[in-house]
Amino acid sequence: MTTQELVAQIHKKQSFLCIGLDTDLEKIPAFLLEEEDPIFSFNKGIIDATHHLCVAYKPNIAFYEAYGVKGWSSLRKTIEYLNDNYPEIFTIADAKRGDIGNTSTRYAKAFFEDLNFDSITIAPYMGRDSVEPFLEFKNKHTILLALTSNNGAFDFQTKITDGQELYKEVLSVSTTYKGSENLMYVVGATKAEYLKEIRNIVPNSFLLVPGVGAQGGSLEDVCTYGITKDIGLLINSSRGIIYASNQKDYAEVAELKARELQVAMAKEILKLN
Amino acid sequence: MTTQELVAQIHKKQSFLCIGLDTDLEKIPAFLLEEEDPIFSFNKGIIDATHHLCVAYKPNIAFYEAYGVKGWSSLRKTIEYLNDNYPEIFTIADAKRGDIGNTSTRYAKAFFEDLNFDSITIAPYMGRDSVEPFLEFKNKHTILLALTSNNGAFDFQTKITDGQELYKEVLSVSTTYKGSENLMYVVGATKAEYLKEIRNIVPNSFLLVPGVGAQGGSLEDVCTYGITKDIGLLINSSRGIIYASNQKDYAEVAELKARELQVAMAKEILKLN
Repeated sequence: MTTQELVAQIHKKQSFLCIGLDTDLEKIPAFLLEEEDPIFSFNKGIIDATHHLCVAYKPNIAFYEAYGVKGWSSLRKTIEYLNDNYPEIFTIADAKRGDIGNTSTRYAKAFFEDLNFDSITIAPYMGRDSVEPFLEFKNKHTILLALTSNNGAFDFQTKITDGQELYKEVLSVSTTYKGSENLMYVVGATKAEYLKEIRNIVPNSFLLVPGVGAQGGSLEDVCTYGITKDIGLLINSSRGIIYASNQKDYAEVAELKARELQVAMAKEILKLN
Repeated sequence: MTTQELVAQIHKKQSFLCIGLDTDLEKIPAFLLEEEDPIFSFNKGIIDATHHLCVAYKPNIAFYEAYGVKGWSSLRKTIEYLNDNYPEIFTIADAKRGDIGNTSTRYAKAFFEDLNFDSITIAPYMGRDSVEPFLEFKNKHTILLALTSNNGAFDFQTKITDGQELYKEVLSVSTTYKGSENLMYVVGATKAEYLKEIRNIVPNSFLLVPGVGAQGGSLEDVCTYGITKDIGLLINSSRGIIYASNQKDYAEVAELKARELQVAMAKEILKLN
């Protein structure tokens, strides 16, 4: 998917919501456990109920990998269901991968070609030759971890290096990578005020923002500091939507929660005019 | 496996060799492609031929993930074969994972419990709460990326932060993590001279050293700067051993190459007396 197609979808749906499919057998409604593939059934329920209110889905790969071969099968069914039924949706493999050159190419093929995701999250620690193999894929997007929303972010990401915080160094340096036009960045919403300085470094890049809702970030603050003329934001919510109910009505309640966010986002988009 | 058991195995075999199982359908001998599971068959051949010369095997998970559900099945068969037939071997899931708290626990369970690996490689960028979930597992080891052997290592890892290079900051800070006695570190052999300073920070920790051989590092240099009284080193070789021949004799040739390294390692161990 091209960035233009993503932007068009955002305007059409008046939403820049990404729904995190962090699907956990211990948290999904008990009645689904009788299904042949409870993880896929749950995801299908969420997707069918919310696809008109969001522009992206983001399965966190750890949740699938934790169930081994079975989990990978659920992941494959989920991405195929999305691509077959809602091809306009931007799909994110939240994998946080990062390895040496040839090995990165392996991961890129696995997620971009075999599973046909539109994008993947990548850790920056190993530098240029661990990221560039992902950037070679046309109309695929690499979402680099810059500033994450967990407490551990302060261990290294905010340390000063070369006169600026490491996460800013990651932003600056990565813009020199070959194919950097295919980069997006993860920036946690718990530090919305940081977005102003981030926009000085990457004025137009899409930012994937976790941490709104359950982790305490404010949608309005994120937009105040981070929104661009092409929106430039994907705001992720996982638990707050998919686990809002663990009863038979889980999909309808998820729709309600997604709609609340979509309505709030439409207001922010309106402010741009 | 306890660290003491690993050290005992090193002394018994007079080897601190780790063999990387970066198994690639495009590189293995063509005759194996007729087998039901060529990746597992190749691994089994390598393992049976070399297990007495090495103390660890390290499948790089990307190579398996690239083949989707089938690849995960090959990985599972490989680790089960190792655990059933050579339980003395230290097993490393080279996954380079790293995610927020609960998600890290998922990965830890997948690799430590479900697949029953002895250890996993982890990226440090997300900090304490992305690493500590792995450290809770008793007799399991977390191998943190410190200084990698690729060129991209110079993008961020060697930048000065808080008065020292980021990779040293990673070493220092990680020693304060809860369960840090279960930490080991990845340190690329292409910078063997750095090992002296690394040993000032982590004098006794095991270091997993890639980059000897194919990537140009010298075994003797690594030992000069990095060896401890309990050895404290696992030297990895992948391509130089497993792809030394791509004919019917691949396993025998792998044994020869592994033996060359084992003999050189025995000499280094002898120097300690």
